[in-house]
Amino acid sequence: MRVGVLTGGGDCPGLNAVIRAVVRKGVQAHGFEFVGYRNGWKGPLEGLTMPLGVEECRGILPRGGTILGSSRTNPFKVEDGVEKIRANLERDGVDALVAIGGEDTLGVATKLADLGVDVVGVPKTIDNDLSATDFTFGFDTAVNIATEAIDRLHTTAESHHRVLVVEVMGRHAGWIALHSGIAGGASMVLIPEQPFDIEDVCARVETRFKSKYAPIIVVSEGAVPREGGEMTIASGEKDAFGHVRLGGIGDRLASEIEARTGKEARTVVIGHVQRGGTPTAFDRWLATRFGLQAIDAVAEGDFGTMMALRGTRIERVPLRDGTGELKLVSEQEYAEAAVFFG
Amino acid sequence: MRVGVLTGGGDCPGLNAVIRAVVRKGVQAHGFEFVGYRNGWKGPLEGLTMPLGVEECRGILPRGGTILGSSRTNPFKVEDGVEKIRANLERDGVDALVAIGGEDTLGVATKLADLGVDVVGVPKTIDNDLSATDFTFGFDTAVNIATEAIDRLHTTAESHHRVLVVEVMGRHAGWIALHSGIAGGASMVLIPEQPFDIEDVCARVETRFKSKYAPIIVVSEGAVPREGGEMTIASGEKDAFGHVRLGGIGDRLASEIEARTGKEARTVVIGHVQRGGTPTAFDRWLATRFGLQAIDAVAEGDFGTMMALRGTRIERVPLRDGTGELKLVSEQEYAEAAVFFG
Amino acid sequence: MRVGVLTGGGDCPGLNAVIRAVVRKGVQAHGFEFVGYRNGWKGPLEGLTMPLGVEECRGILPRGGTILGSSRTNPFKVEDGVEKIRANLERDGVDALVAIGGEDTLGVATKLADLGVDVVGVPKTIDNDLSATDFTFGFDTAVNIATEAIDRLHTTAESHHRVLVVEVMGRHAGWIALHSGIAGGASMVLIPEQPFDIEDVCARVETRFKSKYAPIIVVSEGAVPREGGEMTIASGEKDAFGHVRLGGIGDRLASEIEARTGKEARTVVIGHVQRGGTPTAFDRWLATRFGLQAIDAVAEGDFGTMMALRGTRIERVPLRDGTGELKLVSEQEYAEAAVFFG
Amino acid sequence: MRVGVLTGGGDCPGLNAVIRAVVRKGVQAHGFEFVGYRNGWKGPLEGLTMPLGVEECRGILPRGGTILGSSRTNPFKVEDGVEKIRANLERDGVDALVAIGGEDTLGVATKLADLGVDVVGVPKTIDNDLSATDFTFGFDTAVNIATEAIDRLHTTAESHHRVLVVEVMGRHAGWIALHSGIAGGASMVLIPEQPFDIEDVCARVETRFKSKYAPIIVVSEGAVPREGGEMTIASGEKDAFGHVRLGGIGDRLASEIEARTGKEARTVVIGHVQRGGTPTAFDRWLATRFGLQAIDAVAEGDFGTMMALRGTRIERVPLRDGTGELKLVSEQEYAEAAVFFG
Repeated sequence: MRVGVLTGGGDCPGLNAVIRAVVRKGVQAHGFEFVGYRNGWKGPLEGLTMPLGVEECRGILPRGGTILGSSRTNPFKVEDGVEKIRANLERDGVDALVAIGGEDTLGVATKLADLGVDVVGVPKTIDNDLSATDFTFGFDTAVNIATEAIDRLHTTAESHHRVLVVEVMGRHAGWIALHSGIAGGASMVLIPEQPFDIEDVCARVETRFKSKYAPIIVVSEGAVPREGGEMTIASGEKDAFGHVRLGGIGDRLASEIEARTGKEARTVVIGHVQRGGTPTAFDRWLATRFGLQAIDAVAEGDFGTMMALRGTRIERVPLRDGTGELKLVSEQEYAEAAVFFG
Repeated sequence: MRVGVLTGGGDCPGLNAVIRAVVRKGVQAHGFEFVGYRNGWKGPLEGLTMPLGVEECRGILPRGGTILGSSRTNPFKVEDGVEKIRANLERDGVDALVAIGGEDTLGVATKLADLGVDVVGVPKTIDNDLSATDFTFGFDTAVNIATEAIDRLHTTAESHHRVLVVEVMGRHAGWIALHSGIAGGASMVLIPEQPFDIEDVCARVETRFKSKYAPIIVVSEGAVPREGGEMTIASGEKDAFGHVRLGGIGDRLASEIEARTGKEARTVVIGHVQRGGTPTAFDRWLATRFGLQAIDAVAEGDFGTMMALRGTRIERVPLRDGTGELKLVSEQEYAEAAVFFG
Repeated sequence: MRVGVLTGGGDCPGLNAVIRAVVRKGVQAHGFEFVGYRNGWKGPLEGLTMPLGVEECRGILPRGGTILGSSRTNPFKVEDGVEKIRANLERDGVDALVAIGGEDTLGVATKLADLGVDVVGVPKTIDNDLSATDFTFGFDTAVNIATEAIDRLHTTAESHHRVLVVEVMGRHAGWIALHSGIAGGASMVLIPEQPFDIEDVCARVETRFKSKYAPIIVVSEGAVPREGGEMTIASGEKDAFGHVRLGGIGDRLASEIEARTGKEARTVVIGHVQRGGTPTAFDRWLATRFGLQAIDAVAEGDFGTMMALRGTRIERVPLRDGTGELKLVSEQEYAEAAVFFG
Repeated sequence: MRVGVLTGGGDCPGLNAVIRAVVRKGVQAHGFEFVGYRNGWKGPLEGLTMPLGVEECRGILPRGGTILGSSRTNPFKVEDGVEKIRANLERDGVDALVAIGGEDTLGVATKLADLGVDVVGVPKTIDNDLSATDFTFGFDTAVNIATEAIDRLHTTAESHHRVLVVEVMGRHAGWIALHSGIAGGASMVLIPEQPFDIEDVCARVETRFKSKYAPIIVVSEGAVPREGGEMTIASGEKDAFGHVRLGGIGDRLASEIEARTGKEARTVVIGHVQRGGTPTAFDRWLATRFGLQAIDAVAEGDFGTMMALRGTRIERVPLRDGTGELKLVSEQEYAEAAVFFG
């Protein structure tokens, strides 16, 4: 059997660990051969291949990124995209595909599976917003990097009497903010699921200073003020301290806090550092187990499935479950942590 | 209500995070007062207390160790131990206890609960060998430290053509070895649950060298050779404290490999570094959530319970479940990873 | 003898290590007593003191920030500032001062020394731009944090074919950019001392992509385009990819590169994470030795001096040397590294 | 010109950074070609070569180990060793050699230079015991790893009332122990240069416990008791490779402290983790600059030299200076830190 492997979407620590596990087990336990498709769905679409065997996977386990490259190409938006993929798979003698990626990449996989392509999916999102699985790989790494940054900022906040706003990833779901905020001992966590009241935020900043401690506010990039509580400083304007702020929520929040409370505020945007580089042990373990299970699914002909962590077990669920509803932070989960905020 | 808190047993990153969560939520949400009992069960036994409030918990979240101190004192092995504890709780006006500890500490808690003391338990073991919960805090930190060490040793193994034996904690269960071995890309993992054959180990060392790569072997401190496959080099002797100081399994294995294969072998014993210092984000998050749930259990009068992680939820289970059967690595879980070994 | 200690200016890993060394050696070797002045020169100016002894210094060595707090208060800009300081020193029975800080803080110390106040200085700047000393503490920590970020960004750059611009601290001097750029294997380093040509930068970006590798550009916050080579995109405008950019040099550079080359570019601003948190071993060692030497200078009555590292020795130089000319990256030092850039 | 490069001796973070700098600058600035000699002096002795160009050096800067492999082979102990080397250099068209290594490797280089071979040396020792240079690369990494371990052990020592003995590398010189002991806030540092009195050590252990704090003792592997103060517990035996595997000084010290003071003591031997894995920023910077300067020396025909750090400058010194007297910790340097010990 000949199996094609591809990785799509944004960077995420653990991608190489999945690839390595798929290949090692595929070769050693099942006697499979592999074809690496380069740059996500662009690979099978345009016939971009690379050799992929045990040797290519040497030493990649602790490495961030993906040896296969990535893209956001969607073959369903390309004329005759599906036909081109079918033709290339046939040309390459590929019997089945392992597709590693997020909502978009697995969405394509789901549609291809419906059209009869033999494909197995491995979910990937550092945002952890996939309802089918307890955790996704990459998330633990992102949370640790954000937490280490918060650890470092505590001393600056306290020695210099400043508000520190830490912006982390999470466009739709606040998981990275919530976990790193809890782990880092933040004074406040603002997430997309719970629109914030800027007056309330500023009131808590002032309370915090009264108790002698400077506040650290962790905010998801997708957090928004609630209706009727809009912020008044537009993107790009100078604030009270002469800082020019960007349109990101972290910078806007810092400007608004300065304007309303008169306390100096600084923003740190963790940014792409969260999604690059070596994965934590947890992410390597999870990614490896996803890979092992995925190639077993291929061997068993259990196509149209994707891997999911449930407790400590790796289970297979229908692929479309990976592309349905987002897993958001519930009101209860947010409330659980609220005792530390404010 | 007045609540006593104690920590018992060996060091484990996350203890302070539990204490802080218990106190913060107890004070802010439930209006409780707290008494810190020092040095495990020795505290209530001998009436060793310290002040414990929100102020004492400032800044302790990222710190290893325990601000309450610890011991292995068992009040059931002390004359009139239980009566002394009752008397001290009464003297201190303590209505309920939160006991944070491993098998021994929670074993005492279980017996006291049976005798009518109002106690709630929080499980603690870096070994992760507790059947009631998916993971225990401290484990993720230990695994990451071991994995970082293995990462560093790869280059030495390969540049210098040496066998490297890495001994990690785990007297009865191989979880730390298994997870760090998978995450670190070890060539072999030896665990207590699966007695090893020294001839087989040496054969795999030689195979590995033939493929140009030097082997890294991760071994639990409690791993043992299988019957009929005993090693021939004797271990060292017991010292004043009963430690077998010299001749741990790592050193013995390295000696045996050198003697049998003629390849140079070195041992690294990770040791106490695994159980000290700042916890990972995962462990801080888990420890914090255990603490929040434990003080809610106290508030609800749900005594005789201990906290457990199931998937992503914190649940309460009967205390005796924390002190029953060990959670060992199953044959299937070991086999799953075996494709990487040898 | 009674010695006052203060820390001024921005945060810098190692401040607490200096304080601890000053106090430990002052108490144990010289029998001194100490007064902590809070918040930089504001402390002696307004008589803000705190107890400072061996006990207050327990456990602070690995901690970022400063237990004494800081400020940028300049007593020479306050009416009767010097008289107030003299009066407070007398009130507190303080015979001599140890002032730990940057150009501004030591500038005040220099003037006070000229006016007869017994003061010894310890230089502090993460920018490493002090000509009197080989290195300043805090710099090594900042460089390591920036280097770790660059390490993480390499995989994103390569897997996703993006230009990554990393903005680090350094308003006047490019030391952090130069050292972290060399250590992180950057493709280009832009520093304030060498105004850059944007056309040349873009040409090198394109060359780099031709060799299959995505470029990482490290830029000091104070880097500027050279005359005649101004950038055309103003702060706050949307760029070709619809990103709104801030006025910082990193964001502006990324916009300009996108507009000129059509390659997607992302910015990471390391920011305050560089100057908070636990110091590296080098910075703890240097800060400790500065502190030991500073209190010896006090004991010997060698006032008006500040500490400097020369090779591996700590020497004392006149205070005004710490506040004179900046140490900039020379053309030769920049050229030495240029073989890696472009 | 065609240049051979080799690395000899034990592992040391930064070796790959030197190789990369030598090759990058050699190719780009001087137009040289390179030959990689594998496994130290064994390479030119037995004609073991590998391709070495810019491509082979991609991505190796942050990697520990050496892509060239290493050995301790001494061609002067092999019959006709020098003639064989000459013949292989001629066969490979190699005009000059860059030899990267410690005392032994550079000792061979020195003798070969005397015999007319064109060779330039780069010093390498994690022990930092080379008198010609302020620091050697690898040392900063080793010190940071030891310091991080000590940081982690503090909480165990204090929460569990134990003596912790941390054994670090350093057979003849105590630099790693001294720097990591200062940086880690150790209670005692024992080094080879200052034989210790076991009674004095135990007295200080007891004093420390009286002040409520548990002691951490950092000891160089080469530390020895002073004459007349021998320890009474014998060490283990030599194994097949001549290692004294059991009964290293750390273990012996812990046993002796337990026996004499009745306090529980544990040993952590940092071991090979100190010399593997990714180098710190300082070591990458130093190794890179050594490499750049070394290939410039080749280009200038300045043979028989080795690179040295003096302050912040890289200088060239005669090769034999790298193989002469060891740089030991002086009495004054040890005394400077003694205020923290005991």
